[in-house]
This record gives sequence, C-alpha cells and structure tokens, in this order.
Amino acid sequence: MAKQSGLLRRLGNVALNEVSERFGSTSPTPSSGDTRFTPPTPAASKDEESLEGWGFADTRFVVKPDGSTVLTGTRYNISNVALPDLMQWFAGKLASPLGYDNRNEPHYPPEIPAAKKNDKLVAALREFLKEEQLTDDPKQRLRRGHGHTGGEIWAIRYGKLDRVPDLVVFPRGHDEVVRLVEVATQHGACVIPFGGGTNVTEALRIPLSEERLVIAVDMRQMNRILWVDPVNRMACIEAGATGRHLMEELAKFGFTMGHEPDSLEFSTLGGWIATNASGMKKNRYGNIEDLVLDMQVVTPQGIVERPRQAPRESVGVNPRQYMFGSEGNFGIVTTAVVKLFPLPEVQRYGSVIFPDLETGLSFLYALQQSGAVPASVRVMDNTQFHFGQALKPAKHGLAAKVKSEVEKAVVTKLKGFDPYKLAVATLVFEGSREEVAFQEKTVYRIASEHGGMKGGGANGERGYQLTFGIAYIRDLTFEHWAIAESFETSVPWSRAMDLYERVQRRVEKEHAALGLPGKVFFTGRFTQVYQTGVAIYFYLGFYARGVSDPVGAYAALEHAAREEILAAGGSLSHHHGVGKIRRDFLPEVYSEAALALNRKVKAAIDPDNVFGASNCGINGPVALTPDEEAH
Amino acid sequence: MAKQSGLLRRLGNVALNEVSERFGSTSPTPSSGDTRFTPPTPAASKDEESLEGWGFADTRFVVKPDGSTVLTGTRYNISNVALPDLMQWFAGKLASPLGYDNRNEPHYPPEIPAAKKNDKLVAALREFLKEEQLTDDPKQRLRRGHGHTGGEIWAIRYGKLDRVPDLVVFPRGHDEVVRLVEVATQHGACVIPFGGGTNVTEALRIPLSEERLVIAVDMRQMNRILWVDPVNRMACIEAGATGRHLMEELAKFGFTMGHEPDSLEFSTLGGWIATNASGMKKNRYGNIEDLVLDMQVVTPQGIVERPRQAPRESVGVNPRQYMFGSEGNFGIVTTAVVKLFPLPEVQRYGSVIFPDLETGLSFLYALQQSGAVPASVRVMDNTQFHFGQALKPAKHGLAAKVKSEVEKAVVTKLKGFDPYKLAVATLVFEGSREEVAFQEKTVYRIASEHGGMKGGGANGERGYQLTFGIAYIRDLTFEHWAIAESFETSVPWSRAMDLYERVQRRVEKEHAALGLPGKVFFTGRFTQVYQTGVAIYFYLGFYARGVSDPVGAYAALEHAAREEILAAGGSLSHHHGVGKIRRDFLPEVYSEAALALNRKVKAAIDPDNVFGASNCGINGPVALTPDEEAH
Repeated sequence: MAKQSGLLRRLGNVALNEVSERFGSTSPTPSSGDTRFTPPTPAASKDEESLEGWGFADTRFVVKPDGSTVLTGTRYNISNVALPDLMQWFAGKLASPLGYDNRNEPHYPPEIPAAKKNDKLVAALREFLKEEQLTDDPKQRLRRGHGHTGGEIWAIRYGKLDRVPDLVVFPRGHDEVVRLVEVATQHGACVIPFGGGTNVTEALRIPLSEERLVIAVDMRQMNRILWVDPVNRMACIEAGATGRHLMEELAKFGFTMGHEPDSLEFSTLGGWIATNASGMKKNRYGNIEDLVLDMQVVTPQGIVERPRQAPRESVGVNPRQYMFGSEGNFGIVTTAVVKLFPLPEVQRYGSVIFPDLETGLSFLYALQQSGAVPASVRVMDNTQFHFGQALKPAKHGLAAKVKSEVEKAVVTKLKGFDPYKLAVATLVFEGSREEVAFQEKTVYRIASEHGGMKGGGANGERGYQLTFGIAYIRDLTFEHWAIAESFETSVPWSRAMDLYERVQRRVEKEHAALGLPGKVFFTGRFTQVYQTGVAIYFYLGFYARGVSDPVGAYAALEHAAREEILAAGGSLSHHHGVGKIRRDFLPEVYSEAALALNRKVKAAIDPDNVFGASNCGINGPVALTPDEEAH
Repeated sequence: MAKQSGLLRRLGNVALNEVSERFGSTSPTPSSGDTRFTPPTPAASKDEESLEGWGFADTRFVVKPDGSTVLTGTRYNISNVALPDLMQWFAGKLASPLGYDNRNEPHYPPEIPAAKKNDKLVAALREFLKEEQLTDDPKQRLRRGHGHTGGEIWAIRYGKLDRVPDLVVFPRGHDEVVRLVEVATQHGACVIPFGGGTNVTEALRIPLSEERLVIAVDMRQMNRILWVDPVNRMACIEAGATGRHLMEELAKFGFTMGHEPDSLEFSTLGGWIATNASGMKKNRYGNIEDLVLDMQVVTPQGIVERPRQAPRESVGVNPRQYMFGSEGNFGIVTTAVVKLFPLPEVQRYGSVIFPDLETGLSFLYALQQSGAVPASVRVMDNTQFHFGQALKPAKHGLAAKVKSEVEKAVVTKLKGFDPYKLAVATLVFEGSREEVAFQEKTVYRIASEHGGMKGGGANGERGYQLTFGIAYIRDLTFEHWAIAESFETSVPWSRAMDLYERVQRRVEKEHAALGLPGKVFFTGRFTQVYQTGVAIYFYLGFYARGVSDPVGAYAALEHAAREEILAAGGSLSHHHGVGKIRRDFLPEVYSEAALALNRKVKAAIDPDNVFGASNCGINGPVALTPDEEAH
C-alpha cells in the first residue's frame, strides 16, 4: 500500500537502508509493509567449550613454577600474560599455602553411570532425528547432567555424579521439539531441557528417584535468528542461541538485545527465560522479563504460542508469564520474540573511588533517584578492589608498584582515603552522545557530593571485562585446594549494608565453627540498582586441604549465609534462581497456598511429569545423592 | 544497630525528616532499622459518585436553551463555564440535528431484578460484618452489576439489566475478605469483586446462567495505606483505594505512585491489577505490572502472599504473575506493595503542532529512540484537535475566533499547515530540573526536525486535564441521541498509520452498510509509546434517533473495527482488557493450548468457580441477555 510505504520510508528508512547495505545482495528486500528480514544462516561456531570446567576449551588458568599465573589462550584482556601476584594474594587472603607445588590434581572424567536403554524410543526418535542428533556418549551425557555450582564441578573432577541423562538429543527446529516431546510422552521418558549448562542451582541434576530414561535436550543447534524487524525493533530468535552468538548476529544488523549476564558467552535465550535472568546493563535495557515480548513453548499439553506481537497488552492472564523462572518444569521454549535496541552511538567506561563501601552504597542510592543511571554501575568492596589489583599483568608493572601508586595517589590527592578501606564503582555508559554526556555529568556530580574521586575509564573498562576472565578462577582454586563460589541476593536499600556485614560476620563465625583451615575468603559488590533496593553479589571460599568433605563444608557455609540473608531482609535469589540448591528455603518466601498453586499449575501443564527436572520443589523434596536419600 | 542507623541517616535522612515534619507529632518515628511509617487513617471522602452515569454526582454536562453546554460543578478546568460550540460542533461532525430540543430523556432507575435470598448465608456474614457492611438495596445492587461500556450505561438509563448481584458487601480489611470467601464457598454463593466499576469490558456483568446467589464485594472501604517506606520507596496499600485517594495520601509524604489511567479518580489499585492497567505517565513510572512489587490475594484455595519484598528476584514462577489481567476470575487482591517515586521537582507541559497525523507519528517514533521520552506524550488527530477547540469556553473568546487565530498563526508562521489536516502532540514533562531541561531540549529538537511548531504549555496542560472532563461527554451524547464510546489497541510502529486508516475506512463503510443516520464520528490519538510500537485510542459514535437497536448497532460497528484492528496487526487490547466484550476474539490471539492452560489454572485456583465473573472466556461462552442466550 502506497500510504504505508510512505510511512515506512519515514519511520524506518535509515534502519532498513543500513541493514540492506550490511547484507548486500544476499539479503531479501522487505516488500511493502513487510519490515522483517530473514538473515542468512551463519557458519557454525568453531569455539570448543570445555567439558570439565568453565568456559572455552582453550582457556584456563595455569600456575607457573615461578608462582605467577597465566590464563591460556587469547580471548580475554588478561589472557596470555603473567599475573605475578594472583596466587600470592589468594594465599594471603586465605592464610593458606596456595602455590605451584601444592596441587589438587583433577581426575576427570569420573566414573559415569551407565545409560538406561530403550530401543523403541530411540527408533521413534530416529524417524525424525539424524544420526548425529542423538548420542549416549558418556562424557556428553555427563556434561548435560550438571551446571556450574562448585559442588558439581568438584564432583566431576574429584568425585562423581550418581545420576546423569541417558541420552542427549540435539533438535534443529521447533517441529523436532514438538515430536520429541510427543515421543518422550508416548514412551514414558523424562525430558530435561539443556541450554548453556551454566546454572548454579543444580537445576540440571536428576533426582536419584528418577527411574525413567532421561533425555537431555541440548538446544544449542537451535540458534537461528528467524527474523529481524529493524523498524519495529524486534527479532524472533531460536531459544538455543547463546548470548555471544545472538549478540554477534544482531550486531551485523546494527542492533543489540542489551542482555548481558555474566554468563553471556555460554548461556542461552531459553535458559535466560527459564531462570528469569538479569543482565549487567539492565538499567538501560531491562531484565529478561522486560526484553522478551513473546515466546513459543512446547508443553506436554500442546504448544503455547501467539500469532502476533504487540508492544504491550491487556488480554487476560498471559501464559508467557508462566515461563519466567519455570526452570525446566513446564516445557521447552523453542523461540522467543525479543526487543532490539540500536547499538549505542557512544559507549564509555568510568570509575570512581570512594573512601569506603558504605559511602559507595550511598552514592548508588542517590544515583538511582537521579534519572541518570548509566547502563551499568557496580560498587566493589575493598577486597574486590585488591583482587582486581592482584589480576594486573606483569607488563603493566609489578602489582606491588601499582598498588603503591594507588596508595600514593589516594594519600596525596584526597585525605582520609585508606587503601584498605576504599571501595570502587565501575561505570558503563551507553546511548546517544547527548544522553551519555548528561549521565556522565550527573553521575560525577553525585559521586563528588559523596566524596568520590574519579578513577578513569580504563579502570572501569577493565573491571567490566574482567567479569568474563574471572569466571575461570573457580577451577584454578580447586586445583590448588581452595573451594570458592558465588551467590547473590537483592535487598531494600536501607538493609543492604547491614546485610553485607551480617553475612560477612556469619561466614567468619561458621568457618571457625566448622574448624576449617586458614581464613574465610569473603567479598561482595553491589551490582544492580532498583527503585526500591539493590542486588548484591558475593564470593565465598576457603582452603580445603585436609577437609574431609570440602563440598559439604562449602554447602554448610553458603546455607548459613543464606539464612543470614533472609534474616536480614534479603531475597532468596536476585537472578540465579532456586533449582534444587535453594528449595528448602521456599516456604520462607512463599505462603503455602502460593506454593500449592505452582504445584497445581505444574500438574495442569505436565500431568505426567514429562519435564522431570523437579526444580523449585515443584514435585516436593528430591534427593541427588545416596547421602541425601538416606536423610 | 549503630551501623545501620548510620546508613539510614545517609540513605534516607532527607526523606525521613521531611515525612516526619509533614506529619508532626502525630506520626510515629521509625525506630532504628525500621523505615516504615503507618499513616493516620484519613477522613472518609465526602465525594459522592453518580449511580446513573460517569463520575461524581455533582458533575454532568447540561445543554442550555441557547445551545451552549455547561459542565456542572467546579471540579474540572472546563466546569461551570458556557461552552458555546460543543453541541454545534458535534451536530456538524455527525451531520445530525443534535441540540437542546432534541432530547433523549433517561429513565433511570430501570426495572431491577429481585435479589435471590439466602438467610443462612446472610447470618453467617453478619457474624463478622456490621449492619452497614451489607445491603440488598436495588440501586446499590444494580450499580455493582455493570461497568462503563456504552451498552451498560444505555441499559441502565434506557433499558434494563437482566441479572445483577443479589447482595453487596463492603469488607473493611483483609481478614474480612478471607472470611467472606470462606462463607461464600461454604454456602455455594458466587463472588464478584468490585473496584471502581469503571471497566469497559462488561467484566462485572453476570452470566444469565448463574443460578447461585451473587455477592458483589465492593472493596472501596479498604482504602488505607498500611505503611509507607520513604527510604526504600515502597508503600503497602489496601486494594480498594481509588487512584485519587492514594495519590492524595501519598502526596502528603512527598511521593507518587505515578500511575494515572484516565479513570484514576474512580478506579482502584486492585482493579488496575485485575485489568493490567496502563497509566498516562508510564514512560516515566511504568505500567501497573512494573509498579506492583507484591500482593496479597485471597483465593478459594488459600492466601497467596509473601512475607518479604525484594526489588527484583528469581525465585521460580512467581504467583504474582497470575493476577495481572485475571479480571476477577481467580480471587480478590486485598493489599499490594507498590513502588513510590518522589513528587517531581519540576512538572511542565508542552505542545507541538504537526502538519498531519503521519508526521506526528514519525515524530513519536524518533522520540522513542532518543532516550528523552517525557512522562506523557500523545498525538491527537485533526478531529480531536477540533474537538478540543470546540471545548473552549466563551470567556476565552469565541471558539470561532480562536479557531481563526489558529488558522492565521498556522498560515502565516509556517507554510503548508492546513488547519483541517494538522495534528497536535501534548507533552507532560516530570523529573528533576536537569532531566526536564534535557528532555525538553531533545523533544523540541526532534519535533522541529519533523516540521513541528511549538504550541506552548497551556495547550498541553489543557489537553491533559481535558481527559478527565471529557469522560462525562458520553452521557451527554446519549441524552441527545448520539451513542459514542472509546476503544483502543497497540500495534508495531510500522503498522500504526495503516491501522488507523483502515479502521476509519471500515467504520465508515459499516456505518453506511447498517443504514445508520448522518455521518460516523471517528477520531484517534497515539497515546503510549514503546520500543516496538504504539498504543492507539479511538472514539467512535453515531446519531441513533430512529435506530431500532442503538446499542446493538454500536456493538456491530465496534466489532467490525476490532476485526479490522486484528487484520491490520493490532492487539486485542492495550489496557482495557477482555472481559466479556472481546471474548470471541481470544482464539485469534492465543493458541488453543494457551487458552486451555488458563482454564486449567482457573480450575486449580478456584475449583468450585466461586469467582464466577466468567471473564476472558475462562468458563467458555456466556450469555448476558436472553437474546444472546437464544443464539
């Protein structure tokens, strides 16, 4: 229609022309009124992921005979350079003999449970799946049976898992998932969806009592962008797309989804929905529930889907809502329609040093009220600041030298800063030139009002990028007898500092009470700001050589920390979720009628419990080990 | 705790001190760590609401013998002044003889169905409800049996309702609602929650097939603010609080919830949740689903509630989600915890004239991408612009004069503006001085790039305030034989202009096909902007004297318009909801499995269908009149 073409020209000519240019002649031109492009299928990723630890197979921390540490490969800002101070700093914090010689050699692969067999089921699957879309290879099955809690990684490296999937399948489209669920239902199998396998909630662990054959559905071959609508800022994406993949592909169109969880390299769109994920830049783009307009879900009772997408609606209870936080209990998300944002005109980093953590928190509170909150703002405590210093490479000068320069700068420039008390805010600004200028002006004015000292963009960028490299450290610490892990919460503003301090005191007390060696490692940062409160991300660890059950001791410590968090007014989880690891606390955060309601919804969607992952206590208590079963 | 008091001082000292001052010695001082105030119970409202039409009892449009119109009372910016042009303008637009002499006298009250009786039920209710908390007065029962669709108001003024509630109760607290639902369940009664009674979806209509005694639960005596937390920006409010009440009360603390639907004077917090409401200032504050952190819901299966509020969580599927858009099907929301925002430092209005509606839409699209969207921005079409002119009072000069001045200004200042094509954007800016300055600069730059001419703040303020006065016009038109009503949708950007034009053509065509008199009245405005699209609000009407079934004819017209909206890619509703009026379209917007899922959730929450309003097709098709029953 001529009129609509006219409007399209006005509304979207820049977007459409730019996208057309980027794709050249290989891209379809949208017809009049049709603003959707179907992008060409990209080449398969050549990046191999590790089966036995975090991340890419080419990347891991290694301690050298001289005591320095190197992150192998070339992917990160700290890759392939000697980090002279890291192990020494850890050893100091843990008051324990970490070092090159004191090594806890992993024994991967562990003993892997034999697969249950069902020839009829496999034959039915082979009717629509190719040879390479099914496997019962033990290591592949093992990998789909766990996420990335410390306990799970310790188990596959130093122990074993008592139950893993019996079959791994790789569907290549929505229709294959539909048939898969039908076949599984007919043959009495159990289905557990697998995205990036990065959860830290034991969400992928299979209850010991599960006697059915378990099919892990690895969604990562469903990673196509089915369409991009550059005018209306939407894309329809298969749910197995990883964050790194969809970001790369959307960037070719000049767009971003803006969702950047710490796990974004490996976690998937479907996994984000299932865990109700949060991204580091949520201030600008929103969390996953704000970004997903619509989705297609395969359930045992049929396909929950909608033929059209509106920007916002009032059309009764939208079943879309049942999927955020569903953690694999209800079905498989196969595609989702997400919002797009133009790649920001400007991206700038910043940092501010505050005299102490409490002042940094007060700054965050004032900033939240200002209407000029940058895409990301985080405030790290003093330990995390020194952790960052200990990660400085040798080529930038010895860490000791850097540290003394910071001290000098602090002491000379601004009285009263104590290098062993100060806290650091890292900032990421994104938007138009005007927006970013307005935000920077406001942020640094408020920071200054709170006694903050501008620390420069390089520190801010480094802090943000370190997030991805740091994720590999957990595996390093294991190999040197330290067990460490992260956990998080969200809390109203007025209770945040109290909560932080109570958790610190509690873990110190429990560490002593358990008779664990050395000192407990504890650090936290305020990572997300909201109108009514803030999210806090903690790291917790201890030296475990000689400890009879390191994983059990860690679990006891974290359980105590969570008790303290709840007593201090914090939430059960800000974005990690519940899975099985936090199921015991659910009666403290929901009324019995609320929990019963969720169980009834489960029974309505999945009466045969085909989706048997049993997360969030949806099927009552579950045991994952013979020990738990005995209790 | 000393430490926390220190933090509280920093975080909230201004907020707490200011609030303390406002309440003086009558206000409790929060103890250390406790940031919640319990406000004193305000005096009961003396504002009487009309039983037979929109709004306050003291306010209605009256046509004078000289043909001018007056809005009685003193509440609105157009109250109590002669509006010389209004009826004449309507008559012109409808090409029909509207005027003082051509009057359609209402016959309120209509015949009201007798109440079903159940003495045992009443005795059980009297055990915990006072005399004045129960009534079976016919007019009171009638009022709880309808909302504000044109059809419903026509029925109570010129026809009748075939089924209304048998008993009206006024609970005064959560515990009374709990007992009420228990008693209703025990005695086999049906319960229908009543908030402001402002819905336009027939949500309160009772299916003819309902044979149980129906209790309407008027929630408006549950209007207390249970606590305000000025530091953490939250308040817990009883769900029967009307928008005008809670805004007034929160303003005493220096806060606003920021939720301003057109019905805010009369609609309630619980009603907003049940209909998934949208406010005019949602760009700054969010829609209802963004504003409600938590709620307490009484269901036949127990109380869905949570003991703590976090800013954001990942704790499995949150049953909170089941209530947005639940339209009375699942239970009664008794309290909700909502976000608060400080009253804006600055509030400024603005307006911009564009050569035509399409240009105005392009401006909105560009503005949405800018990151500087004001609290409210709406673009009215040409008819709505002239409607606003026709509402100008005599004391500001004759409308004819104003009109010619506009034409003059337009013609002389900016070539190419046609007064019968131009469109007008009205703007409301709220925020800090810096924010508003930044937004104004950006908005007017973008407006100018789109050929817009700045029209001044007075026009903008007038346009915004008119919203509340205009709501009374529907009843005026009825009394002069015109039937008129609003409806709305949301749609992706690229389809918005096409949808507007298609709907206009369709209603013109249907108006002719139905052989209705005169010309059809049609006008629209773009009222809400989103990343991926825009909401459109339409008014539709026609002259109905001599039409055998005016309400049926209107329903046919609106049904055709809705078909056209869906065919043009629009949504079933942006914020009005489904109720019974749009139930037939649900299979076009949800898959069968999605609808089945909602029915199963209903069965799980309310197995006996105690909440029998039967909205959103949750109990299958329902008939509201003998005519419908016959089909």
